[in-house]
Amino acid sequence: MAPRPRSVYVGIDLGGSKILAAAVTPRGRIISRAMRPTPFRSGGRALLESISESVREAVRDAGKPRIRAIGMGSPGPLDPEKGIILRTPHIDVSRLPVGPWLSRRFGAPVILDNDVHMGLYGEFRAGAGRGHRNLVGIWVGTGVGGAVILGGRLLHGSNRNAGELGHMVLDASIARAGKPAGTLEGEAAKTGMARRLREGLRQGRRTRLASALRAGGRRLDSRELETAVKGGDPLARAVARRSARFVGIAIANLFDALSPELFVLGGGVVEALGRDYLREVRETARAFVFSTELAPVRIVKAALGDDAGILGAALAARRAHPR
Amino acid sequence: MAPRPRSVYVGIDLGGSKILAAAVTPRGRIISRAMRPTPFRSGGRALLESISESVREAVRDAGKPRIRAIGMGSPGPLDPEKGIILRTPHIDVSRLPVGPWLSRRFGAPVILDNDVHMGLYGEFRAGAGRGHRNLVGIWVGTGVGGAVILGGRLLHGSNRNAGELGHMVLDASIARAGKPAGTLEGEAAKTGMARRLREGLRQGRRTRLASALRAGGRRLDSRELETAVKGGDPLARAVARRSARFVGIAIANLFDALSPELFVLGGGVVEALGRDYLREVRETARAFVFSTELAPVRIVKAALGDDAGILGAALAARRAHPR
Repeated sequence: MAPRPRSVYVGIDLGGSKILAAAVTPRGRIISRAMRPTPFRSGGRALLESISESVREAVRDAGKPRIRAIGMGSPGPLDPEKGIILRTPHIDVSRLPVGPWLSRRFGAPVILDNDVHMGLYGEFRAGAGRGHRNLVGIWVGTGVGGAVILGGRLLHGSNRNAGELGHMVLDASIARAGKPAGTLEGEAAKTGMARRLREGLRQGRRTRLASALRAGGRRLDSRELETAVKGGDPLARAVARRSARFVGIAIANLFDALSPELFVLGGGVVEALGRDYLREVRETARAFVFSTELAPVRIVKAALGDDAGILGAALAARRAHPR
Repeated sequence: MAPRPRSVYVGIDLGGSKILAAAVTPRGRIISRAMRPTPFRSGGRALLESISESVREAVRDAGKPRIRAIGMGSPGPLDPEKGIILRTPHIDVSRLPVGPWLSRRFGAPVILDNDVHMGLYGEFRAGAGRGHRNLVGIWVGTGVGGAVILGGRLLHGSNRNAGELGHMVLDASIARAGKPAGTLEGEAAKTGMARRLREGLRQGRRTRLASALRAGGRRLDSRELETAVKGGDPLARAVARRSARFVGIAIANLFDALSPELFVLGGGVVEALGRDYLREVRETARAFVFSTELAPVRIVKAALGDDAGILGAALAARRAHPR
């Protein structure tokens, strides 16, 4: 084993169901990881304590090095300059100053950015996006998040939350302001798929996910979804196809608008449904895109799995605080 | 009158119904304009000759100065580096090397870019976009075109045709690959509005645009549309509202994705339907957008009218060939 470093960067990935933390060497290697369930219904204080515990565990397992800087990815919208989570659909907090709080707790500078920004940054620096300068990331999990890297830099835009792709309306026939139906997230994410499955059940259709839906409420387990889809459950397959179709349409729209070199797809749904899902996404995107005379639509799966967010956050912290 | 300049930049705007050309002083002032109808069904040779005539007329009226460089905006997709129009939905040409052809004809360098790229560049340098560095333009006319300026530069992307916003699918319920229904252009542009009006007629609804639709085929006249909508024609109003709603949804999606400081709306439909149309666009965009905590969605009308494209093309030529 390599010698323990005297200092590390810490990466944190706050998700709708779990908090991940890692200690990362200044060279960019993950040396320890920690995980906590996300207390998504317990308010800000409980959330901050759980994040803090995950950091402490990761740093302890790395041999208690000095923390150079902390990078954290979180669902948004955020105020990245002030380190505040403004609100977030799947976790019960609002205007939470997580950046300043963690900075005081650990005596290190903290940078905060959108979770998928951090994940795509990880893929860009160390995963499926290496060698490209213009990428769009779409993460399909509990919700749908996105990120845009242009010219090697994460795009934040005037509202500092650019890349928020989950709320794009793709089906104006059914979209109502503030409602999920017809949006990318509302049709493609696990929350959206669960809603469509429950609708199917109410219409008398059958699925082996029925009991899981009753037990889990709005949260659908990726493993159970995978088993149902791969086992040929017709309702689950139809809902998965619809999810892939919406992701494919979003990609076609974004290719027409931005024409990135590469789309990187990550998140629990993409991981669980794998190759068939990706094929459906690619076919839809290629059918709807307008101009590919001078460059093709390229869509790849994220390569780093759960490490993308924590590594990306640590590398973003390193970029902001090189020593 | 100011003295005639010894040299000028020429700007050309190739539209679905007319070709505009202008001679522009090195300081950026338009000193002459020319117009020709677009021979949109007559093939490449006739189109090149009409463009050439419009340039000759503009330069003659400017007192026959030397041409420093020519900038031309055209509907796409294009190969801007090679100066080729690859194809374009509303004009019957394909792989037309307009750049090299004009360059030989006039003995000056030619730059070719998308028509709305040039229009937005004009607004950015001299119109409604002045003072901003990050803008999205949406031009709603015969078709719908778009352009993205980030950090003060037109975005071209890997396929060199980024900003092609008209083909974005916004209504997945009715969208079919390669068909207009459910896309921004297919619902918001004059071609799309004419299709919806004809559907209404077939369903037994009445509109004072009926005879214009029979006479004009796919092409709807902006003036007649304006008269019908402002005169209270219910079918025309419903179709205009639908157009505005689709533009508003597109803006919400693009604000979430890119968060530009400003959206600039131009084109014949926006000019004709004016304030009511813009209000409907703004209301829809604001209803659907996700995060405006740190910056509002700002939507303005283009300020330069028909001059945006010709002036933008000339200024883009000046940028590429400063002397």
